[in-house]
Amino acid sequence: MKQAIIIRKDLNMGKGKMAAQASHASLEAYKKAPAENKNIWEMQGQKKVVLKIDSEKDIIDLFNKANAEKMKPALIRDAGKTEVPSGTITALAIGPDTDEKIDKITGYLKLY
Amino acid sequence: MKQAIIIRKDLNMGKGKMAAQASHASLEAYKKAPAENKNIWEMQGQKKVVLKIDSEKDIIDLFNKANAEKMKPALIRDAGKTEVPSGTITALAIGPDTDEKIDKITGYLKLY
Repeated sequence: MKQAIIIRKDLNMGKGKMAAQASHASLEAYKKAPAENKNIWEMQGQKKVVLKIDSEKDIIDLFNKANAEKMKPALIRDAGKTEVPSGTITALAIGPDTDEKIDKITGYLKLY
Repeated sequence: MKQAIIIRKDLNMGKGKMAAQASHASLEAYKKAPAENKNIWEMQGQKKVVLKIDSEKDIIDLFNKANAEKMKPALIRDAGKTEVPSGTITALAIGPDTDEKIDKITGYLKLY
């Protein structure tokens, strides 16, 4: 089991901004995940992988793919008080879910 | 209400590593927080602030201060498969709790 946190690299967010967006996404996806997935993931050490994605179009496409696979992804729009315009999609998290299911749709992305 | 996520800057973690450690800390502190704090924080938009801290000694001191204030902080030790030695303390999260309580003990730290 793992959770994938996907961040738009084209926004060039600073480290702190990016960490906050990742944390928003991680927590929202965690809340949506089935209890069984959460329990197994917690026993296994709560693996998180942070991946980078090229554009808004790509992150929306991935969100749609995760939904099509019934994976309950969490898409984050920034309130936009700093760095990016209000409503900008910054991050997406998927899981915790099985490595196989996560890899099937995110396997083409590189670690941030 | 807000949640403070405090990251060691002396480790010079990369962006992805730092985002993962922040997400670990954020989720653990969220789980420990009182339901009332969580509910109010969620209604208010789940504000998270990411702060930087100088050293392991300083992050442990802050963890102890938060405990002394009965704030249920979450201190994160890295499994150490990448970048830092296993067991390294990387991050701390406190809250969601009131801005006043968070600021009282983290007010001296700067945004990351």
